[in-house]
Amino acid sequence: MSIKSEVSMLEEIISPITLREFKEKYWPLNPLVSPGNLERFKRINGFEKITSIEEALKIYSNPVMVVGDAVIEELEGISDRMLVPPSEALEWYEKGAALELDFTDLFIPQVRRWADKLKAELDLPLGTGAKAIVYAAKNGGGFKAHFDAYTNFIFQIKGKKTWKLQDNVNVNYPVQHYDLVEAPYLPEELDSYWDGLHPEEELPEADIVDLIPGTMLYLPRGIWHSTESNEETLALNITLGQPTWMDLFLSTLRQEMVKNEDFRKLAYNFNTVQDTDKEKMKKNLEKMIEQLGEIVNGLSSREVFHNQDKDFDPYQTTQLVFRQLLTDYKE
Amino acid sequence: MSIKSEVSMLEEIISPITLREFKEKYWPLNPLVSPGNLERFKRINGFEKITSIEEALKIYSNPVMVVGDAVIEELEGISDRMLVPPSEALEWYEKGAALELDFTDLFIPQVRRWADKLKAELDLPLGTGAKAIVYAAKNGGGFKAHFDAYTNFIFQIKGKKTWKLQDNVNVNYPVQHYDLVEAPYLPEELDSYWDGLHPEEELPEADIVDLIPGTMLYLPRGIWHSTESNEETLALNITLGQPTWMDLFLSTLRQEMVKNEDFRKLAYNFNTVQDTDKEKMKKNLEKMIEQLGEIVNGLSSREVFHNQDKDFDPYQTTQLVFRQLLTDYKE
Repeated sequence: MSIKSEVSMLEEIISPITLREFKEKYWPLNPLVSPGNLERFKRINGFEKITSIEEALKIYSNPVMVVGDAVIEELEGISDRMLVPPSEALEWYEKGAALELDFTDLFIPQVRRWADKLKAELDLPLGTGAKAIVYAAKNGGGFKAHFDAYTNFIFQIKGKKTWKLQDNVNVNYPVQHYDLVEAPYLPEELDSYWDGLHPEEELPEADIVDLIPGTMLYLPRGIWHSTESNEETLALNITLGQPTWMDLFLSTLRQEMVKNEDFRKLAYNFNTVQDTDKEKMKKNLEKMIEQLGEIVNGLSSREVFHNQDKDFDPYQTTQLVFRQLLTDYKE
Repeated sequence: MSIKSEVSMLEEIISPITLREFKEKYWPLNPLVSPGNLERFKRINGFEKITSIEEALKIYSNPVMVVGDAVIEELEGISDRMLVPPSEALEWYEKGAALELDFTDLFIPQVRRWADKLKAELDLPLGTGAKAIVYAAKNGGGFKAHFDAYTNFIFQIKGKKTWKLQDNVNVNYPVQHYDLVEAPYLPEELDSYWDGLHPEEELPEADIVDLIPGTMLYLPRGIWHSTESNEETLALNITLGQPTWMDLFLSTLRQEMVKNEDFRKLAYNFNTVQDTDKEKMKKNLEKMIEQLGEIVNGLSSREVFHNQDKDFDPYQTTQLVFRQLLTDYKE
């Protein structure tokens, strides 16, 4: 082992804060703004490839998400986002659309390794997803208030972007993304653990932080945030999944349930099956509830704790596979 | 309600077998080969758009999966499949690659409606995924022995394809896809309910069925099958997800667990967390096992049975969203 591999790469960035302090005072709940010069980002192998959107697009052979008013116009109001070939991305950029280069790490193996190292340093379960996203916009713009179920390390490379960060008093540890513009609507699941009134759209209680080139922001999941800018900006995000104990539990239960044929049998629509079948199915379900009870009785904390290498985020892994299949996509 | 909507569209195809007989004797376990003339497929609205691969590609504005030796050569052995722009698909077709037009229903709303109707007729839970896939190959070819976790209704439109169908004596109701070429390797989950020896690669016990234009094949999940052809072929598949009781249980449990903050907290890697933290986490996990036990005790068969509208197949829904974002993809 070289000495280098024992040095925390995150620690190099957040210095003089140590990794230990970061884990005690910030991770996984409190944001950290770490200012510094742009040069220090180059200590992270692979980051030197992302100096401008033009350079980023040279290596990114994958559909590019373009977002904003220009897209709304093109799609006649149906959506504010669409995927375009990388060769057309700059055209959209010039028209004012923001560009998102999701899974940029597919094209910079060093960044992928760095994200994996970070995941390990933060003691995240082995099955945690990690990826890099490049965000770029020519004429500023930004995102309206929302919170994420992921956590982000944001490296500001070009331009100034103003962030509002506001504590979430409605939900702790959310497991889904939510846009404040949806208020007062709440998806059923989120509603089941939501408390109190939505914040105002402008996040009046927010801390206001200017990200300038060289600033790194650690953004925990769940923090309300919005962004705004009036200039050309470029940022690289390292996004980490946040597997919960629920995820480990459900995957452990699945592992036990799947062995039992009854659980693998086809489910039916209770509205349409015949009454005689319905009664039979209900009886079977009652039996299965008992079997499930036995499975839970047999669970040990060790079994759940050790079941850390499953795919906890099929949405991300499916996208990854799809994007991998598109990396040889030639227009 | 028009009379038409009360007639089973599946029944029209499998006549003289009735829908009721189909559900008693075939669905969801036994294959059915339903021969007939090609004209009858036109009773299904939208199917008339799929008369040739050229016609299909005219409406399919999405990346096309190309599969086979020509791709292996292009990718220097890394993979046998990749996605290419629809404008290039015919070139690959001529080179001998098989084409898969996944989610063709995105471009034929009538077919999407038909698949949804079929889902309802078969009493599948509301959250079941349904889609159409077009398969085409110029010089025959086919798939080696495997089984699927989905079920398929295969409408042979052009050419003759020979299918081998063999009962699965290793697993009942599999919840994952498996390629026989992987033998003797078994993924951990499948291994946990696998019984006995793999069949031989050539499926010697198989029924052999020739699909010719106008034949419809109902292929249940889990049946071993391989295909072969020496001529130009075209087929339309309607693929239906097969949500299991396990899926409904897990989604019901999640619905209850998510309300409890402890379950939403970040999980950790047991290999790397400090011993003092580990002990604390283990204690919390033990508490959570108790809480889970209470959740299971409180479950009713009604609650599980009624929880039928969740997304049981995030792999498919993520792909669908991604493909929707690509429908305006212009090269």
